[in-house]
Amino acid sequence: MNERILEHDNQVVRRFFALDTQTYKDGALNLKTKELLGLVASLVLRCDDCISYHIAQCRDAGVNRDEFFEAFSVGLVVGGSIVIPHLRRAVDFLDQQEAMPA
Amino acid sequence: MNERILEHDNQVVRRFFALDTQTYKDGALNLKTKELLGLVASLVLRCDDCISYHIAQCRDAGVNRDEFFEAFSVGLVVGGSIVIPHLRRAVDFLDQQEAMPA
Amino acid sequence: MNERILEHDNQVVRRFFALDTQTYKDGALNLKTKELLGLVASLVLRCDDCISYHIAQCRDAGVNRDEFFEAFSVGLVVGGSIVIPHLRRAVDFLDQQEAMPA
Amino acid sequence: MNERILEHDNQVVRRFFALDTQTYKDGALNLKTKELLGLVASLVLRCDDCISYHIAQCRDAGVNRDEFFEAFSVGLVVGGSIVIPHLRRAVDFLDQQEAMPA
Amino acid sequence: MNERILEHDNQVVRRFFALDTQTYKDGALNLKTKELLGLVASLVLRCDDCISYHIAQCRDAGVNRDEFFEAFSVGLVVGGSIVIPHLRRAVDFLDQQEAMPA
Amino acid sequence: MNERILEHDNQVVRRFFALDTQTYKDGALNLKTKELLGLVASLVLRCDDCISYHIAQCRDAGVNRDEFFEAFSVGLVVGGSIVIPHLRRAVDFLDQQEAMPA
Repeated sequence: MNERILEHDNQVVRRFFALDTQTYKDGALNLKTKELLGLVASLVLRCDDCISYHIAQCRDAGVNRDEFFEAFSVGLVVGGSIVIPHLRRAVDFLDQQEAMPA
Repeated sequence: MNERILEHDNQVVRRFFALDTQTYKDGALNLKTKELLGLVASLVLRCDDCISYHIAQCRDAGVNRDEFFEAFSVGLVVGGSIVIPHLRRAVDFLDQQEAMPA
Repeated sequence: MNERILEHDNQVVRRFFALDTQTYKDGALNLKTKELLGLVASLVLRCDDCISYHIAQCRDAGVNRDEFFEAFSVGLVVGGSIVIPHLRRAVDFLDQQEAMPA
Repeated sequence: MNERILEHDNQVVRRFFALDTQTYKDGALNLKTKELLGLVASLVLRCDDCISYHIAQCRDAGVNRDEFFEAFSVGLVVGGSIVIPHLRRAVDFLDQQEAMPA
Repeated sequence: MNERILEHDNQVVRRFFALDTQTYKDGALNLKTKELLGLVASLVLRCDDCISYHIAQCRDAGVNRDEFFEAFSVGLVVGGSIVIPHLRRAVDFLDQQEAMPA
Repeated sequence: MNERILEHDNQVVRRFFALDTQTYKDGALNLKTKELLGLVASLVLRCDDCISYHIAQCRDAGVNRDEFFEAFSVGLVVGGSIVIPHLRRAVDFLDQQEAMPA
């Protein structure tokens, strides 16, 4: 679907997508930390697709289950119980990812 | 003001405050990472008091200016231009903190 | 899924879940009023799972259809037309609950 | 300022203001319960002016300090720690109201 | 489902629905502009049903694909990357609408 | 303050600011329509600084008082009564702008 979006000649949208990719590159903060930041931001803003995306990216960056739960705990305490249904889906997605052969 | 709140005998409120403190303790993720998570969550939810609080905590945990700006950049890209006024106040607060004698 | 979450040894998450349960107990405000508060908070924050959960709890606490609609009206006026799709699903869920044998 | 807004001949805005007033009238739910609903909705949406307004209305409807703190606890647990700065201002406002001669 | 909601005798809810319809009528701003305003408001508040509804209304009002993408770009920049999953569904819905015979 | 932010060598932040400026340029939709989109997005996300900024930009683009109130009415109906305090400040800011010599 991203291709379908980028196919249209709209420079602001295209640049935004490029910027979004650039945001999580290793820098003063490493990729792993930045992906965790993206994950917790997605949790408190309650976007399931964004949460799943950042969980997958975090796993690639080496985040382990204990670290995930600590990131989840920050999202839960900052964002409140309204985050709980998203947390359920996040843990479900994480379980599925961990069950897949490496 | 926290004292005034905790003075009242409401166990849920008191426990929430205790839990909030516990959330940022060193664990699988260290204090510095957790405070950065709290900072970016506060940015995208656009709470100036929370942002200032986590900037101060992050500085105590050794976050430097480059790292702050990378955390800000994640908050800005995830949360959008609506975050900009809060980013201005965040950088203003950071400047003041850095100008203070250690 | 809650069990799967609580299975993991993360004290902040576990305590948050316990606190969430404690919040709605009878106290200075009764259970029914508190569940209505939870329902309207869920409506304006637009979380379908939370809305369904609190509708079920409210029904157990004796909230009738007129009272539900008055609570919905507060959520709708405070939260605006962006609440309407969630209100549709709320009324649909309520209809299903009322259609079930007691 | 409301007068200044309503002075302008815009029927949608005027009707919205009339509807907002109508929302909290006694009905299947009484005024006190509805004002508490408005208060908690304002807390989780984090609007200080709305919180102060509903605290004043709740006080007129006979809500006591214990009941206020239970309503606050629902708002805090549902909305998370991001609500805390608003809770501080809410308790400060409540203290001022209670300090005023009846 | 709207009928099911309006069937219940709650005047606030009914008036809100009437007001919502009235909001987008031609006036000082024309229908097309107002529907675009509704679309971008729905994007930044991230409500898929509202987005689809306003895309259909905008199409009826003559909004073309370039104009849609410029409205999307405002929603994306103001609301941030958290809007992206909703933008994907918006473009998918728009594609489907455009594929339908007139 | 923007200068202070852009002074720091963070490419993501700088590019975001450039993109934000580019977003509102005349295109398939004209500047006036885009600024109205930015205004209503700011209203429903309830950011006073953003609202004032877009009111000033809209005025430069020729938006008149009737058009402002229709844009406000969309923001109010979509975003709900929680928008009212921001609407008050918006009308106050607009009054000040209109009172200034051209």
